[in-house]
Amino acid sequence: MAPPERVVRVAVLGCGNVGSALVGMVQDRSDALAVQCGARLEVAGIAVSDPDRRRDPHIPRALLTTEPGPLVADPSIDVVVELMGGLDPTYQLVKAALEAGKPVVTANKALLASPEGVELRTLARSQGVDLLYEAAVAGAIPLVRALRESLTGERIHRVMGIVNGTTNFILSRMSEQGADYADVLAEAQALGLAERDPTADVEGFDAAAKAAILCGVAFGYDVSGAEVMREGITGIRTADIEFAERAGYAVKLLAIVERTGDDAVSVRVHPAMVPKIHPLAGVRDAFNAVFIEGEAAGELMLYGLGAGGRPTASAVVGDLIDATRNLMAGTTAPSPERMPARLLPESELRAEYFVSLDVSDRPGVLAAVAAVFGDHRVSIRSMEQASAEPGSPGGHEGDGDGARLMFMTHGACEGDVRSTLEALDGLGAVRRIGGVIRVVGDGG
Amino acid sequence: MAPPERVVRVAVLGCGNVGSALVGMVQDRSDALAVQCGARLEVAGIAVSDPDRRRDPHIPRALLTTEPGPLVADPSIDVVVELMGGLDPTYQLVKAALEAGKPVVTANKALLASPEGVELRTLARSQGVDLLYEAAVAGAIPLVRALRESLTGERIHRVMGIVNGTTNFILSRMSEQGADYADVLAEAQALGLAERDPTADVEGFDAAAKAAILCGVAFGYDVSGAEVMREGITGIRTADIEFAERAGYAVKLLAIVERTGDDAVSVRVHPAMVPKIHPLAGVRDAFNAVFIEGEAAGELMLYGLGAGGRPTASAVVGDLIDATRNLMAGTTAPSPERMPARLLPESELRAEYFVSLDVSDRPGVLAAVAAVFGDHRVSIRSMEQASAEPGSPGGHEGDGDGARLMFMTHGACEGDVRSTLEALDGLGAVRRIGGVIRVVGDGG
Repeated sequence: MAPPERVVRVAVLGCGNVGSALVGMVQDRSDALAVQCGARLEVAGIAVSDPDRRRDPHIPRALLTTEPGPLVADPSIDVVVELMGGLDPTYQLVKAALEAGKPVVTANKALLASPEGVELRTLARSQGVDLLYEAAVAGAIPLVRALRESLTGERIHRVMGIVNGTTNFILSRMSEQGADYADVLAEAQALGLAERDPTADVEGFDAAAKAAILCGVAFGYDVSGAEVMREGITGIRTADIEFAERAGYAVKLLAIVERTGDDAVSVRVHPAMVPKIHPLAGVRDAFNAVFIEGEAAGELMLYGLGAGGRPTASAVVGDLIDATRNLMAGTTAPSPERMPARLLPESELRAEYFVSLDVSDRPGVLAAVAAVFGDHRVSIRSMEQASAEPGSPGGHEGDGDGARLMFMTHGACEGDVRSTLEALDGLGAVRRIGGVIRVVGDGG
Repeated sequence: MAPPERVVRVAVLGCGNVGSALVGMVQDRSDALAVQCGARLEVAGIAVSDPDRRRDPHIPRALLTTEPGPLVADPSIDVVVELMGGLDPTYQLVKAALEAGKPVVTANKALLASPEGVELRTLARSQGVDLLYEAAVAGAIPLVRALRESLTGERIHRVMGIVNGTTNFILSRMSEQGADYADVLAEAQALGLAERDPTADVEGFDAAAKAAILCGVAFGYDVSGAEVMREGITGIRTADIEFAERAGYAVKLLAIVERTGDDAVSVRVHPAMVPKIHPLAGVRDAFNAVFIEGEAAGELMLYGLGAGGRPTASAVVGDLIDATRNLMAGTTAPSPERMPARLLPESELRAEYFVSLDVSDRPGVLAAVAAVFGDHRVSIRSMEQASAEPGSPGGHEGDGDGARLMFMTHGACEGDVRSTLEALDGLGAVRRIGGVIRVVGDGG
């Protein structure tokens, strides 16, 4: 088939790993993409902060500019791909593109999960222009399109995702090698899987932004990342994971969006114990996976690479083809109107909990701790006691008088568990509250 | 939002489990679907073979007709959903609908994988009308759309799928419970997971039709189900699975479509040993999963229910929304031109093989068997000997003089392995050739 004559000119904002891979894919697959788009894609400009930085040889220097604003405003630009990240100046740039009727493809989860993201989606809808963001959640996994198009007729009950590869790598390694959190984090940093400052990953901020985006796509509720209940993995120790494994669970950091009533939703990120038989439990290393429970479809899971230049660029290319086809056809991808979310108060959540405590190893401590649980209506299902690791933050190194208590509760209210934890924190014999992990995927 | 005024009239051909679930979903989710389609969906007629059969109470008797032809031809019908199955009269009905410019949604894998299916896809493209079939492969899993739209910019190397729930149920149970093939097949039949005549499932015909469809969607090559290399699971015994497990593998019936050169492809269905660490190995019971290897996206897997009335209807509804939206917008889903496939000759495939043989238990047999492998350039990596099960087809019941030899080979050519098996079949000491299972997913 002869390639079509029409040319669609693409502005690429940002040229890191993803931008560089994207430009390479558009060059290498030029003919195939032309057939699929019904137009030849031409990268017409690449906005970067430092044009003199060393780059892959396939990046044409003549296309580099340090002025993204004029590039977006250039009337010859048809489509904008935003890969700079952050809110400033991306918000202004995306807004300018949409106002000019130019479709935008972005991988910017922080922007999409911010109040500005809500505004940009509304603008795109009112302008009748595509704002596509498959790459913003779970990288190469075709999740956003599946929720937006394939499952659009489906009433979805819950979506649970391993959406942060860094923390999944850390938890997998702690589980498989019995290694300490700090050692595995250092390994992840050495492999380039974790940032020097790992806060965004290990404290769950990155997953919370993705949970907010998922909530919008799955349920049509606008939620910002800041509204998402969020707990990270820094409190989890190898002994907690070993306890979970003996009980038949894997420990995963999950982003969960869940219908909790006709117009209410729970959106949260926290470590979870997932039954080993559950498909999410087998997701290893830096892989991502999203498990979807729908009324008619039943259980679905989508699995793949959530990060990395080429996998992310692959998702961007899918959106770019979509945006181009829609532009040529004068249509847009489905973008139903969003509603503000009524978030379930966190205190009303229910789960079974794993709680580990570092305590003084002396008579009566267990009874005192157990009484605190009981006083707050939290029923203990099982308990296990181990010596505290020497050198662990809870143990007095060398004096051997510390112990670790690990509890599994029956189903309990988040509010009651929080009161329990506060009371335990005030108990003299409790030196430190360790991992708090909710059981999910057990029909719960 | 007020529901739109425009009504799209849908003809449903066939009202078994899927049709009945579909009609229920269109009724129950009427308002939500209207918002998503931009039009109100109205089931305007349901073609059935026996209008007096007992049906779910939500099926309006007044809509039933035994005449699908006039229903499809009715000028007031906008969209046709074909859920009758088989080639006759579905081919004529789908053809008539497409010729009249009416989009068709079908779950009919046999039709799509036939030469008539190739003709219908060509007709749909030339007519500029949608022919959508998400439900034909892997039921509720949004696989076809992922390949057709999200991954359309991606160069896909290989797709491997567990696409038949019946055989996956049987193999899972044999593995987990050590149960015999015949006993598990009977259990599957009792549960309604297998037909009284299980041939289409256990001999791989169903999976072969799906492999043919996958080849078209993933690579753009037209292949018919009859062209697909096909081996079923009837030769596999519990001992073979136990051997595989000790070696670190799960046994799965896989549909594989694989690029083997710039313009050649291998399309096949056969039992395979999958490393336990591979995501496909953990897919249990009647679940389906499709593992995709792309150049940029890396490894992806989509998992879910591959059969059942409601999961299949969920996929049909997704397509119905798509067809309706496209109809209103005057566009169609992407449907790139197909090419005829150049199929790799089966004899050129390469793999490591597991082969089990029932032999006479007397001195010199192993040497004779090993010589046959060597004569045909097939190198043996490991061998294990066990007594034949009493009562197994290969053992002489009660006389105790049978043995089973289980071999793993190094990488070998299919042609050489077939010559080996033929020669072994002619060897007096070989009573029966048992399971032949290829190793995949090991980088091989």
